[in-house]
Amino acid sequence: MKPGEESRAVLPNPAVEDPRMHRIATAATLLLCAPAAAGAQAPAEGVPAPSNVRGRAYPRIHPDLRVTFQVRAPDAREVLVAPRNRDSGLGLEPYKMTKGADGVWTVTTPPVRPGFHYYELVVDGFRCPDPNSETFFGWAQQTSALEVPDPALTFYDARDVPHGEVRAVWYHSKVTGQPRRAFVYTPPGYDTGRERYPVLYLQHGAGESERGWSAQGRANFIMDNLIADRRVVPMLVVMDHGYADLPGQEAGARGSNAFARVVLENLVPHIDRHFRTRADADHRAIAGLSMGAGQAVSIGLANLDRFRWIGAFSGGMRNFNAAEGPLANPAEANRRIRLLWIGCGTEDALYANNEQAHAALERAGIRHQWFSGPGSHEWQVWRKHLYAFAPLLFR
Amino acid sequence: MKPGEESRAVLPNPAVEDPRMHRIATAATLLLCAPAAAGAQAPAEGVPAPSNVRGRAYPRIHPDLRVTFQVRAPDAREVLVAPRNRDSGLGLEPYKMTKGADGVWTVTTPPVRPGFHYYELVVDGFRCPDPNSETFFGWAQQTSALEVPDPALTFYDARDVPHGEVRAVWYHSKVTGQPRRAFVYTPPGYDTGRERYPVLYLQHGAGESERGWSAQGRANFIMDNLIADRRVVPMLVVMDHGYADLPGQEAGARGSNAFARVVLENLVPHIDRHFRTRADADHRAIAGLSMGAGQAVSIGLANLDRFRWIGAFSGGMRNFNAAEGPLANPAEANRRIRLLWIGCGTEDALYANNEQAHAALERAGIRHQWFSGPGSHEWQVWRKHLYAFAPLLFR
Repeated sequence: MKPGEESRAVLPNPAVEDPRMHRIATAATLLLCAPAAAGAQAPAEGVPAPSNVRGRAYPRIHPDLRVTFQVRAPDAREVLVAPRNRDSGLGLEPYKMTKGADGVWTVTTPPVRPGFHYYELVVDGFRCPDPNSETFFGWAQQTSALEVPDPALTFYDARDVPHGEVRAVWYHSKVTGQPRRAFVYTPPGYDTGRERYPVLYLQHGAGESERGWSAQGRANFIMDNLIADRRVVPMLVVMDHGYADLPGQEAGARGSNAFARVVLENLVPHIDRHFRTRADADHRAIAGLSMGAGQAVSIGLANLDRFRWIGAFSGGMRNFNAAEGPLANPAEANRRIRLLWIGCGTEDALYANNEQAHAALERAGIRHQWFSGPGSHEWQVWRKHLYAFAPLLFR
Repeated sequence: MKPGEESRAVLPNPAVEDPRMHRIATAATLLLCAPAAAGAQAPAEGVPAPSNVRGRAYPRIHPDLRVTFQVRAPDAREVLVAPRNRDSGLGLEPYKMTKGADGVWTVTTPPVRPGFHYYELVVDGFRCPDPNSETFFGWAQQTSALEVPDPALTFYDARDVPHGEVRAVWYHSKVTGQPRRAFVYTPPGYDTGRERYPVLYLQHGAGESERGWSAQGRANFIMDNLIADRRVVPMLVVMDHGYADLPGQEAGARGSNAFARVVLENLVPHIDRHFRTRADADHRAIAGLSMGAGQAVSIGLANLDRFRWIGAFSGGMRNFNAAEGPLANPAEANRRIRLLWIGCGTEDALYANNEQAHAALERAGIRHQWFSGPGSHEWQVWRKHLYAFAPLLFR
């Protein structure tokens, strides 16, 4: 497929006559065709990344997982492709792009790891998203990402199986005095059946948002596939926004436990009122990644009358002291906690913390599951964590 | 509120200990605080735009609707703020930003019109999103936008009324051979009731996506407010992706009517199978904006056994010939069409086309509603169109 052909994906349906639309499309086409029109460069081998905006030929993934980036910036003096997580598998350092005579900058990376990699362009020192890629809320702003399919994995793909829905749900929080949005995954058949479902509360990381687990994490497709393969108890998955401020409190003020209060006082009651849930601790789980892992552990352990299944994906584990609080009495903890699950990638800077938490729990005789495997502080690991964690719930 | 304070909105909840999170937050904080830290500039008057990424102090809207943009780019030679629609109300020409000693570029516009305005930054000639703002899929890529509240209007706000849901729904299209995503608005109480609902199919414009009507258009809040005020028959609103390609056909190939086939053969049957709809032409409407208006008119008029309510918001009206096809026999058209609604802003380049279509319908004696008012080819107009159109449906 030639770039010129691909760029036509942005052309409107020509069955529909609309001159405005053609004007818009022409502008878009000119922009997109520029590299091809300006010439020389034949389309590289490989395929457009699935994270590309529709119709964009670059970034382009080669069979050996090298990736070619290309942008047009005739007046720039320097353009870099900068991995946002240095340890995410896209590489460690920014890649310098090379300018062609046509003003098109190009770089091809060495082979990268499969997975989801946040990155930015740096144009004359200015960090910005790459217009060729979709953006995702991460690093406290809209950030470009590159999705590199893993040829060996299909568990997070949109397979041809029945799909659940991801519902944007707005609710008023009395704790914050503000409207809030959560995303709720409902399994296939939710609308037509009558049964009640257990609920997993699933939190994103710092600088991300309530959209993270579906957009970056593909939690809905992971659940669809697990359900189709009969490997999981069908459940609702509630993905809320992990930040909250009390009224009159400055945004993100230190010392606030506003988010925990939102979950306990507003979110859980809202979900139990508006969805067919099994509204007890035996059928309610809480998990999260990174910052969300800390939230899951602190909210979960402090409220075992509300949540009896807890998952920490790549958490800091600083507030996880096996000798204190609800874990101080191992027999009591083992009686009350149905699942305590801890996972971390071996290349994650937090790996040692997690391994120590695991060891401390072992010494204390507190039942838990420990999951380690390759990978760093990145979404590909968290997808695997969800895939390993969810089948253990509500059994 | 000082910029330094606002930037703390990106700080993680400090109740949760997670060193990784702090590392991330520190990086984000440094980035955000840079203007304040670097110094001189006191925070401008006004308030952060609602379209800002959480915690960002700029863009900033002044009481007289001037807007100040600010970005840090110490190494850039030129930075512009470029309105994407030249006629959208943000202004006609790019605004040149001025560089301060601290590497922070600033510009304040003259007073702008309220509404939703796509824009870009142009950094040394490179067009890219503004990291301070949320992005929206428009102009065939992720594009920054500035939301300027209209002090006189609340009809598209998230008021404290019962909220419906916006559900991401995946379905397999036999026409394209691909999975597709649609968004479906369900009114408050949909889950707890048993009644069946009429359906409005509502399409975005060229270069936009199925998310446009909820993200840019706020269709869900408009419907919530109309329902709360008892001004509309509660209905489902289905917002699909307006592009489709047949298998083996190159993306966006000319001559394809794939989208119309997707709607008729896949989307409508899927919605009628999975939602409690009133599955007949009297309870099915189709409308859209710009390219979507053309799709609504062509699909609607050619399939009056499926859709009897049609809305064209700022359409090109080229395929709208009152003397041909289903409109050739005015008596028959008046019998079959329950509503034919045409709207366009008076400052839109397509206004004359729409006025001519209206006049032709008048001459032919074909019943229709004609809605004109201030505004150009922009979302603020389409929000008003939906607000005027929806209450007329299914009566």
